[in-house]
Amino acid sequence: MEFTAAQIAGFLKGTVEGNPEEKVFNLSKIDEGRPGTLTFLANPKYTPFIYSTEASVIVVNNDFAATQPVAGTLIRVEDAYSSFATLLAMFDQSKAGNTGISAQALIDPSSQLGERVSVGAFTVIGKNVVIGNNVLIHPQVFIGNNVTIGEDSKLYPGVKVYHDCIIGNGCTLHSGVVIGSDGFGFAPLAGNDYQKIPQLGNVILEDLVEIGSNTTIDRATLGSTIIRKGVKLDNLIQVGHNAEIGENTVIAAQSGISGSTKIGRNCMIGGQVGIIGHITIADDVKIGAGSGIEASITQPGAIMLGAPAIEINKARRNFIHWRNLDEIVRKIYSIEKQLKKSHE
Amino acid sequence: MEFTAAQIAGFLKGTVEGNPEEKVFNLSKIDEGRPGTLTFLANPKYTPFIYSTEASVIVVNNDFAATQPVAGTLIRVEDAYSSFATLLAMFDQSKAGNTGISAQALIDPSSQLGERVSVGAFTVIGKNVVIGNNVLIHPQVFIGNNVTIGEDSKLYPGVKVYHDCIIGNGCTLHSGVVIGSDGFGFAPLAGNDYQKIPQLGNVILEDLVEIGSNTTIDRATLGSTIIRKGVKLDNLIQVGHNAEIGENTVIAAQSGISGSTKIGRNCMIGGQVGIIGHITIADDVKIGAGSGIEASITQPGAIMLGAPAIEINKARRNFIHWRNLDEIVRKIYSIEKQLKKSHE
Amino acid sequence: MEFTAAQIAGFLKGTVEGNPEEKVFNLSKIDEGRPGTLTFLANPKYTPFIYSTEASVIVVNNDFAATQPVAGTLIRVEDAYSSFATLLAMFDQSKAGNTGISAQALIDPSSQLGERVSVGAFTVIGKNVVIGNNVLIHPQVFIGNNVTIGEDSKLYPGVKVYHDCIIGNGCTLHSGVVIGSDGFGFAPLAGNDYQKIPQLGNVILEDLVEIGSNTTIDRATLGSTIIRKGVKLDNLIQVGHNAEIGENTVIAAQSGISGSTKIGRNCMIGGQVGIIGHITIADDVKIGAGSGIEASITQPGAIMLGAPAIEINKARRNFIHWRNLDEIVRKIYSIEKQLKKSHE
Repeated sequence: MEFTAAQIAGFLKGTVEGNPEEKVFNLSKIDEGRPGTLTFLANPKYTPFIYSTEASVIVVNNDFAATQPVAGTLIRVEDAYSSFATLLAMFDQSKAGNTGISAQALIDPSSQLGERVSVGAFTVIGKNVVIGNNVLIHPQVFIGNNVTIGEDSKLYPGVKVYHDCIIGNGCTLHSGVVIGSDGFGFAPLAGNDYQKIPQLGNVILEDLVEIGSNTTIDRATLGSTIIRKGVKLDNLIQVGHNAEIGENTVIAAQSGISGSTKIGRNCMIGGQVGIIGHITIADDVKIGAGSGIEASITQPGAIMLGAPAIEINKARRNFIHWRNLDEIVRKIYSIEKQLKKSHE
Repeated sequence: MEFTAAQIAGFLKGTVEGNPEEKVFNLSKIDEGRPGTLTFLANPKYTPFIYSTEASVIVVNNDFAATQPVAGTLIRVEDAYSSFATLLAMFDQSKAGNTGISAQALIDPSSQLGERVSVGAFTVIGKNVVIGNNVLIHPQVFIGNNVTIGEDSKLYPGVKVYHDCIIGNGCTLHSGVVIGSDGFGFAPLAGNDYQKIPQLGNVILEDLVEIGSNTTIDRATLGSTIIRKGVKLDNLIQVGHNAEIGENTVIAAQSGISGSTKIGRNCMIGGQVGIIGHITIADDVKIGAGSGIEASITQPGAIMLGAPAIEINKARRNFIHWRNLDEIVRKIYSIEKQLKKSHE
Repeated sequence: MEFTAAQIAGFLKGTVEGNPEEKVFNLSKIDEGRPGTLTFLANPKYTPFIYSTEASVIVVNNDFAATQPVAGTLIRVEDAYSSFATLLAMFDQSKAGNTGISAQALIDPSSQLGERVSVGAFTVIGKNVVIGNNVLIHPQVFIGNNVTIGEDSKLYPGVKVYHDCIIGNGCTLHSGVVIGSDGFGFAPLAGNDYQKIPQLGNVILEDLVEIGSNTTIDRATLGSTIIRKGVKLDNLIQVGHNAEIGENTVIAAQSGISGSTKIGRNCMIGGQVGIIGHITIADDVKIGAGSGIEASITQPGAIMLGAPAIEINKARRNFIHWRNLDEIVRKIYSIEKQLKKSHE
């Protein structure tokens, strides 16, 4: 593949600054740029590299103002990050084509497969499963009885989907994801023993959901655990039974959503966040990494941080106090001493 | 399936309040109740829904006192939650019957399988494995050499059990669980390198243990990592080598128990708790979600919260101080200023 | 196997204190020592057990000074812990020999396998894979197209390695590990939707890397996520796209390293630590369990603790203040009251 800066600028609806005939053959990171590659600058942290990168062409935001000479040719666009994403998709070699149905997959004859479906070796598809067109199921996947999978979804090697769950169109599930395992429900009996509460519900993933590797989503006790359209979950996340995550909400790795909690739309939740059960998070809420949420957040757009989480600016001031806590406490003791003295 | 309120009350040893001939066909959640379904009220958080639910029959605790008219028929019982669990089990469709031994499983001939054992496709069973009666092994499971599995246990798709481990009767292991991987032990060598400490022990799960998806339990260096009778572990939990978890202890998702730590009986440990290695937790201890335990807890029945964890009521007061920390610190500065002034 | 204390001392270059003809047949933990076994004492926490253990021979550090009589025979060595590790390796029964290529594995004919390679049942090896000598691949493993695996590496049951990743010599990957799943990258679109950023890079594990069960390492967007020589990762760890972990760094369970972060050499990172993206951690840094790292650590050898993390001694003092926070705050209110009074 070979493009000129002018061709790429045309494609991105950007403007060239430098040599429009500059050629690129591949993409690179700005701090590892080599001649003949195209890179981008979006995160201001990487600005210094634009003056040293060997990349031939650099996509930047329209408002980028160089403070030193830049060797490469610039393409100015409205949003450098999303423009680069578009180019990545163009260069993407990973779009594995249709590999067909492996003779070493075990597919129950009661199941219905759409057109152009791929099923990898050692995959098991249970009874009465319905799979839409263009679905790509890698090897070693397990699909339980009565599962439905929409069109264009991708299940990577080793994904496990328990019986009765529903997966929408255009979903991506990475290796080790478990959908529909039993919710954690036990009723105490006499004598400290527990009785298991059967988990009879399911999990519903709406369209365009992406789920990172080894994330687990438990089935509902009754009804459904629901992951709404466009939700993106990173790796090693836990979603408890009967939880619901609203449209286009994004959650970073290792966070945990406890049972029966409802999260609104367009929320952004950092990594290693813990959210207790049976609460509600409003729309457009942002929660910083490592936070602990122990009560409902009712204000849409709230930005929270800390464990327990409070309004982010307050939390940041408190984090400064935490850094200085020893000095603050010494101050108190000194004040106390001073006062005692003045009373003597 | 169709039951009258009177039939269900008889079965649960409860009393009907309303129409004993009211019929139900299915179960529902109280906030999603539809006519013809039976629901329950146990968590006071859901009390408001009893006045609006369309469910025909509602199981409540004997001491429930309505403050408004309830449309549905009530069945009063001693413990609504465990009664409902009993009904769920009655309605449970998921009890997959014996599916037999798949021709596509690989079972070493030296292994012994009990009666009515099911083994799914693409499962591997190693040498000298002993499996009790009625065990249900789903597809894609791995059972290493010399493993023993007791009667009535269930291993969901993709469970991995390393060599020499022992699983008791009536255990349930969800997808992605790893039992018996190597403990994390490395001896420092000269020059910053590490030498691996071979991990020669095993993992023992006693009877009635349930383990959530993608939880990992490492084998002991020597001896055994032991999970006692009736322990319930949620998803994505880590149990380090040589740890021991006492009878009927329950641990929520994403918690981590470091190596050689011993946890007592009947403990309740919240989600995302971290417990350091080589310590002891007494019986009946409760630890709140997100806590960090850095020292032994010797008092049985202690209730702890925070990181580092302290007595829960103290921690809750401290959490209020955390919320107000900025105001508190400003107060100190103001006092300091005042004092300075008065000394001038 | 049977050895005398003198034979073992000769092998370890240690000195015998007691009966050099004492015989041992197996190894034990010091608190579970039985006659005829050899144990060791390295962690001072276990010192009391040396006076009660029934083990016949005990390996101790040269500087161990008994304060009571010890029944067993001692072998004094420079480093009891690493000497014991050496003995464990001698006794290790788990070294599964070459089991050959399973007829039930699916290996693409374009792949090249070295000498004495084992491939377990239901394993899938993709196109153009290159596997070095003596590699042991257990059942149910997935190796994507164009993957390279160095000599003497071990992949336990159910490991998943996505296309284009590179695994060095002498690496060990435990069950459920996922190498090379997509990094978590989405560009916001108009209307709250997200566009997936294709992840075109790979993951490189250098030599002698060990990775615990169910740990996930995402591929780079461009370039490589790199795990340097000798790194040891425990279970359930998340490593984000384009991260880099320096030589011989050790990370305990459930920690998370966000995207594009670079960690130095010889670091020791405790369990459940969270490290944000796009920062740098210097060499030889130690980070206590449960810490949150929100900024680069530029000082080599720094020891940090807390969330947010600060210098460890300061953090420990602050933890004491946290335990006493309620008393401290009451003190402030009392001072305030006193001052008000004195102004009246």
